[in-house]
Amino acid sequence: MLKVRRIPIDTYPENTAFVLRHGNGYSPEQFQALRKIRISCEGGEILATLAIVDDDSIIGADEIGLGEQAFKRFGLAEGTSVTIAQARPPASLEYVRRKIDGDVLRESEVAAVIRDIAHHRYSPMEIGAYLVACAGFMSTPETLALTKAMIDVGNRLHWDSPLVVDKHCIGGIPGNRTSMIVVPIVAAHGLLCPKTSSRAITSPSGTADTMEVLANVDLSEAQMKAIVAKEHAVLAWGGRVDLSPADDVLISVERPLRLDKHEQMVASILSKKVAAGSTHLVIDIPVGPTAKVRSHSDAVRLRKLFEYVARHLGLVTDIVFTDGSQPVGRGIGPVLEVRDVMAVLHNEPDAPEDLRDHAVMLAGHMLDFDPALEGGKGYARALEMLASGKALEAMQRLIDAQGRQTQHFEPGVHQAEVKASRSGRVVAIDCERIARIARLAGAPMDKGAGLDLLHKVGADVQAGDALYRVYANAEAGLGFALDLAQENSAYEIS
Amino acid sequence: MLKVRRIPIDTYPENTAFVLRHGNGYSPEQFQALRKIRISCEGGEILATLAIVDDDSIIGADEIGLGEQAFKRFGLAEGTSVTIAQARPPASLEYVRRKIDGDVLRESEVAAVIRDIAHHRYSPMEIGAYLVACAGFMSTPETLALTKAMIDVGNRLHWDSPLVVDKHCIGGIPGNRTSMIVVPIVAAHGLLCPKTSSRAITSPSGTADTMEVLANVDLSEAQMKAIVAKEHAVLAWGGRVDLSPADDVLISVERPLRLDKHEQMVASILSKKVAAGSTHLVIDIPVGPTAKVRSHSDAVRLRKLFEYVARHLGLVTDIVFTDGSQPVGRGIGPVLEVRDVMAVLHNEPDAPEDLRDHAVMLAGHMLDFDPALEGGKGYARALEMLASGKALEAMQRLIDAQGRQTQHFEPGVHQAEVKASRSGRVVAIDCERIARIARLAGAPMDKGAGLDLLHKVGADVQAGDALYRVYANAEAGLGFALDLAQENSAYEIS
Repeated sequence: MLKVRRIPIDTYPENTAFVLRHGNGYSPEQFQALRKIRISCEGGEILATLAIVDDDSIIGADEIGLGEQAFKRFGLAEGTSVTIAQARPPASLEYVRRKIDGDVLRESEVAAVIRDIAHHRYSPMEIGAYLVACAGFMSTPETLALTKAMIDVGNRLHWDSPLVVDKHCIGGIPGNRTSMIVVPIVAAHGLLCPKTSSRAITSPSGTADTMEVLANVDLSEAQMKAIVAKEHAVLAWGGRVDLSPADDVLISVERPLRLDKHEQMVASILSKKVAAGSTHLVIDIPVGPTAKVRSHSDAVRLRKLFEYVARHLGLVTDIVFTDGSQPVGRGIGPVLEVRDVMAVLHNEPDAPEDLRDHAVMLAGHMLDFDPALEGGKGYARALEMLASGKALEAMQRLIDAQGRQTQHFEPGVHQAEVKASRSGRVVAIDCERIARIARLAGAPMDKGAGLDLLHKVGADVQAGDALYRVYANAEAGLGFALDLAQENSAYEIS
Repeated sequence: MLKVRRIPIDTYPENTAFVLRHGNGYSPEQFQALRKIRISCEGGEILATLAIVDDDSIIGADEIGLGEQAFKRFGLAEGTSVTIAQARPPASLEYVRRKIDGDVLRESEVAAVIRDIAHHRYSPMEIGAYLVACAGFMSTPETLALTKAMIDVGNRLHWDSPLVVDKHCIGGIPGNRTSMIVVPIVAAHGLLCPKTSSRAITSPSGTADTMEVLANVDLSEAQMKAIVAKEHAVLAWGGRVDLSPADDVLISVERPLRLDKHEQMVASILSKKVAAGSTHLVIDIPVGPTAKVRSHSDAVRLRKLFEYVARHLGLVTDIVFTDGSQPVGRGIGPVLEVRDVMAVLHNEPDAPEDLRDHAVMLAGHMLDFDPALEGGKGYARALEMLASGKALEAMQRLIDAQGRQTQHFEPGVHQAEVKASRSGRVVAIDCERIARIARLAGAPMDKGAGLDLLHKVGADVQAGDALYRVYANAEAGLGFALDLAQENSAYEIS
């Protein structure tokens, strides 16, 4: 028997267990080839990756250390007695092997895999194996089964309404911060729009990161319910309420591998939306040469997959193809995006037009879900909510209801301009590269880091004109970003 | 700048770096989503998985901890100043993504992937992604390219002879310890046979584990050369001499996933053999319902792949299909296997016949590579070497040359018999299950652990007769093994 000890080491997303190499009668080296051990007590068991310790000041011979993930997930008090053994691989790994061999899995088999993944019984390597096998081939029914399984293992929010609207963009376009405009418009009109958003994983900012510049986004389910009851809407971070936890685990592996197959994207997005209680969903698919979807035919294939899975889940969808040829708005990064969003909500004359048009169009599609509106009037109604200032008022009420941010954020103090190397017309801006530059500057952890695009596609520039300004609060971040920008500015000028 | 500190934590096979969460100006959390960081100094760089520490008694704010793998691989002194940054993913990951998308990779692309893997620039997840993508589809030229790449990144042994013979069994059959009989026979005849073997990873024993019961197997290249010069042969652990190091990394991921595609097997085996300097190789492919290869047609496909790759590498092969329907010999586990091997070499009348026949047959094929022997006389010559006691003498000389084992090992002190639940004839013995039971008993770390098979296929048994005896030196090991044996004894009686 070993006693549990908390080890203040965070190996997110993996569970790690620390065991002394000698003196505990366990010969932990015998477990090392397969790395994973099973830690058991009367109350349950957990699987963890083994780290062997050679210093008894870190862990005693009669102890087992649990890293922060494992300690929290196992939930045992320090000092609890446990036993360890070689982990038996989860039985569902047999299905993964069959998937690797090209099989189509049944609904119950997909469910077993997802249950084990959500309960952290798979290592990142095993999750990677499943995802790569799925990337090779996945049938439409398997995609549906995956989505259902992901919904089933998580929490589900229920709103007492037959019409709960939401929107989602598949991502990939920096600055595309429409939710913070769309949600206030829809709320001002009076539809229920409880929006949960993610933080950025590999992009320069997620809606939750940007909204946090203005308000608290870390809301409990009860807080969200209270706010929605009063304001019809909320703009919260989804991570707190445990929607589709398997998705979070899958994403932690998909992102480093840059896996972005349609099937996995559809399952990820729709499982989160159904779990969040949405009934009507507008999906924004930007199409462009550096966007996630690069051709019209790909966009159509993706749309059909969204429609198939959503229909079987009873979710009404309206899928919109948008211009994904360049970033949206001017600012990239939390503080700079907030500036653009607020300029639109304030109806400032120099607010970025593309951001405003894009947001109003999406809000219009959402309002068209309202049976009380005459067909096709959604767009006009959305414009009205924005122009009248009602959307701005709704946003201010939301900020107050969620809790106004007490910290004040400014654009990063270290700044530099990236200049055009030749004269001509801007014909393209590479979304992927812009995102990487902003990310290297420090966004989204550094709220003030990012880029300000001074010219967009179609502009005529002279050699030496500033194309964009980079902001960072850490000098190193500015340096990293400029290094990448020097290689290639992301602007194509012809 | 952070100062390197060695952290006595072994996270084999991964490099791990320990960084304090706060106070060092790095905000390591920003690196956490992608987990991998690049640690650089003037002398070079290393990639490591990030562990974030919340206790400055483990690591100081001005320090970076390197776990044992990373510290050894980076090779810097403690206190060396380094910087950290988000790891840029290895450029060769683009090829992995193309492989995931179903592409055939060029030789230079495969080489780039394998170089990065051998230099520990891939995480297990990324290695898993590559292997699973390859498991989906891999062309014959890709398999050849993989084998070449694996040879090129490691050490190569050179023997001053045009005829360096070797044998290899693809594995999966417990007790199949022929190398320790074959090598002395071949050495007694006078052919050069410098054999490097592996330790068990998921099997109950590897040749290196079993040989170690008798002699030192951890030999340097210089020691091997000296022994081979005198004895024509050696029976060494291959891990010491860095042959095909990429293979070791790949195996550390293949085994937990139980990936055993032909292409990966061929690349693994042939890269090790060519790197070890073999020119002529007998390959033993056991075929049976619980063996790695389960049908004759599969065996033929595998043989053709071995032949294609070997031919392009200039390696002469002779591929033999053998009976893989049950374990070979009686003992499973290092000490018990040594008993069987020595009984054969001593020509004891009750030595396991199947082990002897199998070994003599393989040795005969190897001797047939000798141009000085008349065609087809290898088998008779092998029998002669064994019967005359010359093989035993060669083995004793080898043991002395390598260094006789000073520790004395006995079969495990905790023993129990597993009994037949019904009367009838033994019609099958499940190799996989026998291996798992022996492994749970503690083999190969516990040299005395394992099984002794008291009946083989074809025997008539009565209900209650002992089928096999389980040995362990740890009571817990005996318990684990008996639990699995209780579920299903691995014997089919009809």
